[in-house]
Amino acid sequence: MTISQLLKERVRYAPYLKKVKLADELIPLFKHGQNLGWSGFTGVGTPKAVPEALVRHVEKNNLQGKLAFNLFVGASAGPEEDAWATHDMILRRAPHQVGKPISNAINDGRIQFFDKHLSMFAQDLTYGFYTKDRTDPHAYLDYTIIEATAIKEDGSIVPGPSVGASPEFISCSDKVIIEVNTATPSFEGLHDIDMPVNPPFRKPYPYVNVTDKGGLDSIPVDPERVAAIVESTTRDIVGPNTPSDAMSKAIASNLVDFFRHEVKMGRLPENLHPLQSGIGNVANAVIEGLTDANFKHLTVWSEVLQDSFLDLFDNGTLDYASATSVRLTEDGFKRLFADWENFKNKLCLRSQVVSNNPELIRRFGVIAMNTPVEVDIYAHANSTNVNGSRMLHGLGGSGDFLRNAKLSIMHTPSARPTKTDPTGISTIVPFASHIDHTEHDLDVLVTDQGLADLRGLSPKERAREIINQCAHPDYKDLLTDYLERSEHYAAKKKALHEPHMLKNAFKFHNNLVEKGTMKVDAWDPVE
Amino acid sequence: MTISQLLKERVRYAPYLKKVKLADELIPLFKHGQNLGWSGFTGVGTPKAVPEALVRHVEKNNLQGKLAFNLFVGASAGPEEDAWATHDMILRRAPHQVGKPISNAINDGRIQFFDKHLSMFAQDLTYGFYTKDRTDPHAYLDYTIIEATAIKEDGSIVPGPSVGASPEFISCSDKVIIEVNTATPSFEGLHDIDMPVNPPFRKPYPYVNVTDKGGLDSIPVDPERVAAIVESTTRDIVGPNTPSDAMSKAIASNLVDFFRHEVKMGRLPENLHPLQSGIGNVANAVIEGLTDANFKHLTVWSEVLQDSFLDLFDNGTLDYASATSVRLTEDGFKRLFADWENFKNKLCLRSQVVSNNPELIRRFGVIAMNTPVEVDIYAHANSTNVNGSRMLHGLGGSGDFLRNAKLSIMHTPSARPTKTDPTGISTIVPFASHIDHTEHDLDVLVTDQGLADLRGLSPKERAREIINQCAHPDYKDLLTDYLERSEHYAAKKKALHEPHMLKNAFKFHNNLVEKGTMKVDAWDPVE
Repeated sequence: MTISQLLKERVRYAPYLKKVKLADELIPLFKHGQNLGWSGFTGVGTPKAVPEALVRHVEKNNLQGKLAFNLFVGASAGPEEDAWATHDMILRRAPHQVGKPISNAINDGRIQFFDKHLSMFAQDLTYGFYTKDRTDPHAYLDYTIIEATAIKEDGSIVPGPSVGASPEFISCSDKVIIEVNTATPSFEGLHDIDMPVNPPFRKPYPYVNVTDKGGLDSIPVDPERVAAIVESTTRDIVGPNTPSDAMSKAIASNLVDFFRHEVKMGRLPENLHPLQSGIGNVANAVIEGLTDANFKHLTVWSEVLQDSFLDLFDNGTLDYASATSVRLTEDGFKRLFADWENFKNKLCLRSQVVSNNPELIRRFGVIAMNTPVEVDIYAHANSTNVNGSRMLHGLGGSGDFLRNAKLSIMHTPSARPTKTDPTGISTIVPFASHIDHTEHDLDVLVTDQGLADLRGLSPKERAREIINQCAHPDYKDLLTDYLERSEHYAAKKKALHEPHMLKNAFKFHNNLVEKGTMKVDAWDPVE
Repeated sequence: MTISQLLKERVRYAPYLKKVKLADELIPLFKHGQNLGWSGFTGVGTPKAVPEALVRHVEKNNLQGKLAFNLFVGASAGPEEDAWATHDMILRRAPHQVGKPISNAINDGRIQFFDKHLSMFAQDLTYGFYTKDRTDPHAYLDYTIIEATAIKEDGSIVPGPSVGASPEFISCSDKVIIEVNTATPSFEGLHDIDMPVNPPFRKPYPYVNVTDKGGLDSIPVDPERVAAIVESTTRDIVGPNTPSDAMSKAIASNLVDFFRHEVKMGRLPENLHPLQSGIGNVANAVIEGLTDANFKHLTVWSEVLQDSFLDLFDNGTLDYASATSVRLTEDGFKRLFADWENFKNKLCLRSQVVSNNPELIRRFGVIAMNTPVEVDIYAHANSTNVNGSRMLHGLGGSGDFLRNAKLSIMHTPSARPTKTDPTGISTIVPFASHIDHTEHDLDVLVTDQGLADLRGLSPKERAREIINQCAHPDYKDLLTDYLERSEHYAAKKKALHEPHMLKNAFKFHNNLVEKGTMKVDAWDPVE
């Protein structure tokens, strides 16, 4: 077949040019029930041409539910995975997803989804934990489809804007299909890749600063395992970021005040510690808040970087950022490549096993900031399941970071609207309807109302601090009433460590389902 | 004062001999509200003389509640801390305790207790997180009272049978009181001490095998800070271990079968990986089970070692064990010292920050085994609070190990008796009444009924595996009924990821309180 000039320039290992195929030619490789790995993380760096060809094939031949796969992606993939979900092409999926079609398929029971800390997911896959019927550690997966932006002279793969779980997928995959994306510039020079090593042969990660690099600049692959090279001409599409608003700015302001206080008390250095920040308008507002706060020489050790970090670089606040994904808008990527020589020295993309590794998060003393669905009065947090059962996106790296950070911070609006009540959902509840992070893992909770510093407090002290500082005024009395009644009840039972009335623990949630608001009228009687 | 010959032999740094005092002479140093650190872990290596003198002082002068302290101990202390609890001498306590008087004081609301992962507790103390009103990082604590079994020529401290949080306490303590225990042999040569280093100056722990040592053989202390040396003549008293029974042997047998299967499938090497095991009759039965199972060259990376490990050494199964505490019975200590030259080369005690460190647990691929209070059908586990509110002992290192282990295992009887029903408490419940470990942290659950391998399963699959393999027969139908009704309800709500009926989630627990058994007659209607 004809090979484009662009593709020839990107593929510097000549034998691969004999393996160039059209995506449609690869359809016969795929069988129902296979285990597949895709590159990608937070919707960038994902394969596109082959997944789309498979969708066309399923559509044309009415193979919905008959040609379906166990699909593993480092975190969320792009619109291709939504198309797969729509066409029932996913049997099983881990560990994170974003998009209505795929979350609908999970919540309809059509996809068996499981959720795992992002740093552990990739590792556990290489242990064979998710493919327990197989014994060949080099064939736990049938195919890995990985997007490259270049191929080096040794056949190794230069990823695009994300590394994710690709090194682990390739290490345990029977065959590899490489999509070389010629529509996006090459990201060569931006990556530092540690290939997986499993116990008992593991060594320490030698990094003592976020700027340290010790790995490879591309992902090695055995050329014998490369089944095909496909040219991809579709760029990653990332929608505009949710802008900050008065609510998220109030949260950011409370948090910046707290950082200043910690510096003053000697518990943080003047340039803080490496920051981890998530996705969403609160996270963006926090980064914007830092941009205006006169901190200097900040660094970032996170899983994903968004456009707001470019501003932090541009005004001289941020010295260096390490992550596993740069999830930029079209405009953000333009800014990145317009100043490539500068950014190349200030950015590093690593595998998610490294970006989210407990060893490094703890060593660096990272400041972790994440947004929960809800938090209870004792500081247990729900990051994943609305009303205990309905999956949103998944856990992501929130557990990796919150558990191991020096400062574990969650930020959230104090209330959210329902159809009938502008403050119908309180983010602070008596008992979280699903628990992803325990009371042992949260140092600070911050809302638009204020900031609760929970370090060193007993559960009952924590509850009062959270209610007083963080709850929306519409819920302060209700939550205090729950706490006081629980204390009264627990005193009789000699169970005053963490007082609850289990009969009323989910009353907020049940009221929401029945009446469209968490504002309960009365508690059920307890003996 | 007269200094005993025994004491002179143990204290090899002469200037300390001028600081020798009787415990009663130190009473004036102690003021209400001070922050104190005690050495000790799992009831061994704790200070005795000074705490007892303070009890006598409080008793004699009726100072109950008027001379009380914020008390920090690595984990549980010994009977001295129970006496302190009885006399209301503890205002605040973290992070773990054992003993009726202290748990009663917590559950009566007389002690503000907070619970933290043992590896993080000591670190967070050095960050100043538990003493937020203070700014001098060398005086977050007023006094550390530490038991030594010898003092080296440089004035450094050789601990006894535990290291615990002593290195961290000393690093952030204004003054140090050393109790030299002359009733127990010196433990010199058994310790490997890494003193705390905080971000941004941390380096990797260089250990790649459980046998590696890289620290000091004693705890350095600035002699200027040593307020007094006290001779202690009371030995640690550890009661007899709970013997294994048919129930715990059944659990152990299921687990040993699983290990053999994992070796066969290539997911574990023949000598497994380093083992972590807790305290209690199930843990003992598992170690006994391994003693008879023909494994060779096992190693242990744990927080506490009990007598059963001596048998594992003696029959040649175990090569090496590292922990932060050897909690042996009187007979166990005799065995240890009778063969000291042998055991000295096969045992190592480190700080709890190191023994429980995520970096090392993950690097080594530890197999973690712990006993929960209860586990729910989706694999969330309660380790601390009975019926959601009543504190037992605390979290201990269960979170450190379960989160970071290669294999995270919980073992428990499937049911427990109440006063009126021999199987009135099911260990498997619809929704755990307190959650210390999330569904993301448990690989395997094993009971006397069987073993549930949860790796790679979605929540609904996990629930069926747990109910079928692990639940007591008296509860299988009830739990299945809860699951199926929840699925029916969740299907209507399009929330089928992790189906619950929040109205009935704690029905087992409420029934237990009201009727003395978890065997519910009927569910509350859900719409």
